[in-house]
Amino acid sequence: MIPTLEWTDQGVRFLDQTKLPLEETYVLATSYQDVATVIRDMIVRGAPAIGVSAAMGMALGIQNSPSTTVAALSKDVDEMAKVLAATRPTAVNLFWAIERIRVLYYQLVDKQPANLSEAEKIERIREEVRAEALRMYDEDIEACKTMGRFGAELLPKEGTVLTHCNAGALATCGYGTALGVIRAAVEAGHKINVLADETRPYLQGARLTAWELLHDGIQTSVLCDNMSGALMRKGRIQAVIVGSDRIAANGDVANKIGTYSVSVLAKEHGIPFYVAAPWSTVDMATKHGDDIPIEERSAYEVTHSNGKQMTPDGCGIENPAFDVTPAKYVTAIITERGVLYPPYDESMRAMEAAVKAEANGVPA
Amino acid sequence: MIPTLEWTDQGVRFLDQTKLPLEETYVLATSYQDVATVIRDMIVRGAPAIGVSAAMGMALGIQNSPSTTVAALSKDVDEMAKVLAATRPTAVNLFWAIERIRVLYYQLVDKQPANLSEAEKIERIREEVRAEALRMYDEDIEACKTMGRFGAELLPKEGTVLTHCNAGALATCGYGTALGVIRAAVEAGHKINVLADETRPYLQGARLTAWELLHDGIQTSVLCDNMSGALMRKGRIQAVIVGSDRIAANGDVANKIGTYSVSVLAKEHGIPFYVAAPWSTVDMATKHGDDIPIEERSAYEVTHSNGKQMTPDGCGIENPAFDVTPAKYVTAIITERGVLYPPYDESMRAMEAAVKAEANGVPA
Repeated sequence: MIPTLEWTDQGVRFLDQTKLPLEETYVLATSYQDVATVIRDMIVRGAPAIGVSAAMGMALGIQNSPSTTVAALSKDVDEMAKVLAATRPTAVNLFWAIERIRVLYYQLVDKQPANLSEAEKIERIREEVRAEALRMYDEDIEACKTMGRFGAELLPKEGTVLTHCNAGALATCGYGTALGVIRAAVEAGHKINVLADETRPYLQGARLTAWELLHDGIQTSVLCDNMSGALMRKGRIQAVIVGSDRIAANGDVANKIGTYSVSVLAKEHGIPFYVAAPWSTVDMATKHGDDIPIEERSAYEVTHSNGKQMTPDGCGIENPAFDVTPAKYVTAIITERGVLYPPYDESMRAMEAAVKAEANGVPA
Repeated sequence: MIPTLEWTDQGVRFLDQTKLPLEETYVLATSYQDVATVIRDMIVRGAPAIGVSAAMGMALGIQNSPSTTVAALSKDVDEMAKVLAATRPTAVNLFWAIERIRVLYYQLVDKQPANLSEAEKIERIREEVRAEALRMYDEDIEACKTMGRFGAELLPKEGTVLTHCNAGALATCGYGTALGVIRAAVEAGHKINVLADETRPYLQGARLTAWELLHDGIQTSVLCDNMSGALMRKGRIQAVIVGSDRIAANGDVANKIGTYSVSVLAKEHGIPFYVAAPWSTVDMATKHGDDIPIEERSAYEVTHSNGKQMTPDGCGIENPAFDVTPAKYVTAIITERGVLYPPYDESMRAMEAAVKAEANGVPA
């Protein structure tokens, strides 16, 4: 089990993904501000992982708050939510997780018995919020394993699967979304080799995907992002699977920059293109992929490589961190609630209705 | 004028492209073996530039040979041709240039008057071979300027042009093929911004294309290779232009790895995709692009970045240096003899006939 993030008595412990694959070091976040920094600096990254990280950040902030009244604590909670939400704009799981904790918090406030002291109320709220964050951690791993079971059947019995960026154990609380599907297929006996796009500029594929798959004994090769088209043309790739940072109500998929290009290449070569993501990545409030905010990151990520300047002075730089793949390029979307197929506007609406019915106690 | 390579009394002087853009340093090759090393180590690169470099290497080898008889010198010449041809396999200009010098050499051997001493014969051959290499240098620049004039009309009056790798002054003896067309368009008053794919793993776009275009005051931005698809989808790219290392008789184009992916993306977005290359890049003896040998380079180029290992131990690596873009993705091929349009098998056969007729003294 790869320890991407973990709740400890001292705070939230993160595997420092900026140091992989050469160093396995950890960062301990002892405040919600620390957690925000860890997310912003990409010590932890990946939509599901930053969602749970933010939930743990909220739990940590509530635990450590010096406020002595519930009213004061509520103000802190609103501030924590604001700070954590301002870290990265694209992955919807971040906002979903913060909101889940914030809503729970106010429910807990409302239901505290009037005869308790402020200190007793705060203590009970702290415990329940922490338990909820830990539940979200467990649910994330469970969702990945379920996605894996659903998705494994879609992968070839034998062949090479291309992935882009890292949608693995390191992007979740464990097991992974896209890489979880690959893991499940391998566990089910499929003979799968993985090609991992190195994923410039941050090299999540070269550094993280290759590291975690080799860690699990799955044969993996890294290629530069400009090579997959040529390999597809030679018949060397049988399927593509990626994760997602946000899926719009029409099935458009935001994911790491370069995903869109891979999807176009896959379509041109008749190769299936799968997206694996938990239902929390689906944002039914966003109607169209082009409404998803796309984070622009620092030019330095492109201009410099290990501290050395690679581009001339005066050069412009493009560095969008994500792109949008229109639904028409997506063969299927694998979630822990089942596999969605086109037309996505219909299949997603149906799944949303089932999720709501279940939340209201109606069996799906 | 960017001094990519230059014949000097001391040997052939190369701008060291491995050190750009931060350092402008030069390497002096004083033997044909030095020239072979300079080509192999990519101190000089780009199909037209390595062609002329090899021709100068032959001239340098013939000049420096200690052989005292023409028969001994001929053996040296065959060895030089072999060593220089073994440097890089894909760019056909290399073999074309070596062969042009070798054929000339044997013509010169045959036509030396019998009454001359061996030393006199060798001296005359040396001078004529050197003159031929210098002529090839001048012809290369002239061809680039002519390509520029032909190609400029194809570029938008105003807009953004994407290029991949470096097909510029640094890939030729000056002015450039694809970048020569951009230069000519800008000189003709077109308002053009350039987007330069950084071009992993060697970063010719980030390091070389951006450097030489900014050197000439042309506004240039660098992007990672995985970003152009997303920018095309947003309507931010009006044309693509690239160079080539070899063009097969059916119009298939070998060029830097990643070119094929860009061509597929351009087609998907209805964006014209142009190739600019001198006629010496056309290899009518190769019927189909898939018959072109594709150089595989060292895994180290992908695994390491400025000396630091970026991939985990045990990881497989793909590093093809080139790919093949089938003719169907190519809008037009710009040569110094005119612009070729599909169907390329016909237009190229017609141009080949015109070239042969001209060589035989028949006006084109």
